[in-house]
Amino acid sequence: MTTTVGWIGLGAMGGPMATCVARAGYPVTAYDIDPQKAQSLAAEGITPAATVAAAADSADALVLMVATAGQAESVLFGDGAAAAALKPGAVVMLMATVGPAAVEGFAARLEPAGVEIVDAPVSGGAARAGAGDLLIMVSGSERALSVAGPLLDVMARNAPVVGSAPGDGQKVKLVNQLLAGVHIAAACEAIAFAAKQELDIRKVYEVITASAGNSWMFENRIPHVLDGDYTPRSAVEIFVKDLGIIQDMARNQRFPVPVSAAALQMFLMTSAAGMGRADDASVARMYAQVTGTKLPGQSD
Amino acid sequence: MTTTVGWIGLGAMGGPMATCVARAGYPVTAYDIDPQKAQSLAAEGITPAATVAAAADSADALVLMVATAGQAESVLFGDGAAAAALKPGAVVMLMATVGPAAVEGFAARLEPAGVEIVDAPVSGGAARAGAGDLLIMVSGSERALSVAGPLLDVMARNAPVVGSAPGDGQKVKLVNQLLAGVHIAAACEAIAFAAKQELDIRKVYEVITASAGNSWMFENRIPHVLDGDYTPRSAVEIFVKDLGIIQDMARNQRFPVPVSAAALQMFLMTSAAGMGRADDASVARMYAQVTGTKLPGQSD
Repeated sequence: MTTTVGWIGLGAMGGPMATCVARAGYPVTAYDIDPQKAQSLAAEGITPAATVAAAADSADALVLMVATAGQAESVLFGDGAAAAALKPGAVVMLMATVGPAAVEGFAARLEPAGVEIVDAPVSGGAARAGAGDLLIMVSGSERALSVAGPLLDVMARNAPVVGSAPGDGQKVKLVNQLLAGVHIAAACEAIAFAAKQELDIRKVYEVITASAGNSWMFENRIPHVLDGDYTPRSAVEIFVKDLGIIQDMARNQRFPVPVSAAALQMFLMTSAAGMGRADDASVARMYAQVTGTKLPGQSD
Repeated sequence: MTTTVGWIGLGAMGGPMATCVARAGYPVTAYDIDPQKAQSLAAEGITPAATVAAAADSADALVLMVATAGQAESVLFGDGAAAAALKPGAVVMLMATVGPAAVEGFAARLEPAGVEIVDAPVSGGAARAGAGDLLIMVSGSERALSVAGPLLDVMARNAPVVGSAPGDGQKVKLVNQLLAGVHIAAACEAIAFAAKQELDIRKVYEVITASAGNSWMFENRIPHVLDGDYTPRSAVEIFVKDLGIIQDMARNQRFPVPVSAAALQMFLMTSAAGMGRADDASVARMYAQVTGTKLPGQSD
């Protein structure tokens, strides 16, 4: 029997992810706060839902691809009232990065209704979402994974199961975000510092990407700086949010994380300087602006 | 005509590097503050020198593979008096990471004697040094590079020329060290934080190395943590030194580098806790010890 999919959130990631699932043959009924979004995907075989509850009520699996824990809360238990609409045995697939505490809380509140959570935050941008090429860090019960697994396989190149408890997926995702956020901030600090030394930063990029100083993020983001192109592929605010979740968790646990705390401050400074919705490589522009250093594409 | 090589410094890196050069057929006369070191390499075709000046006086190229700017200063202009012993036209190859200011100073002081500097700091550990597999960031005049180039090719897999002025090699090397140091500190912060979340850190390693949070250093160093093996491959003190040079440069230039400043503090804390000569992945042990988090190989 085919799994019936309800979908909440058709943004830059959610839209292409839902399209992948529909193209794989699953019936998808989708809601977004902007009704245009679902309408525009009707040609891809997605059925628009007028309300959250309408997307939830016949779903075997309800995917939440919203931005924050607050939005997920609202969808499930607030105005959206998805929790009340879901049938017993349904599975909620929480695919946003919202932190383990939120997921654990949702799981406890859904349990009396016989609804389980699969914790499945995603890594990878919109282009990879469209190609079904995401990395998804997954945790959940064996039964819940039996429902969600085939859908995850459609969306992901790699969907490792990292634990059985909802929250474990979030924890691994946040470890990834700690590293990714620090690496972006460090890449931007390093390339702006290189420009300050009047080095040829294209040559620096070439040497570093072949050296022990390389990171996935340095290799991926610094070309945006070299081209002076800060069109958002992934925005500064994403790391304000994700590094913020890490700081909250770590502070509550009395676990000092000074390196990622410093990185968060750099994303905050970049956001404060008006670049929150720009590409996260804008951290390099912020260093350059503050220090009067010239980077490509900057006006004098 | 074969280039005659003088060599100062036969430590963990200098020994295997000099051996590579000797095996390639170059006559190498070498001095180390520990006379045993040169004696033990005699079988490799290296001629021991009793003094720095004896290694320098017939050299077409004098390699300095010492630890600090102070040691290089002493070799060239202090007790070693190599500068006075070198013949006009000789080239000094400065292969340690000492910062651009030191190299620029040495170059200016050597110029009246007709001696040029090739700035050629290396990246890569002892194993790669022995295999002639280093990365060397090179700068110098065309004439000086014509002398040094063939020797660098023996020691390196990759020896990009990053500029024509002595100091440019140091600058690129330090950009690399900024990134490498931050990445080690972030890797250690992240894996200790993951252990605090009671995640399976081997699984975390496997997921992260296939994700956007990966770095060359995460992939290379975290296995030391997973194995609980802190035998020094590269010591904590290396990054205390190199990130310290970066802080000094950046402060003098009024260029804030808060992310690498935070990383330096973590290497300092690890050194302060008695692990300065241990492997730089010991930063993870420091986080674990401070927070009471269990990592592999730790006693309860």
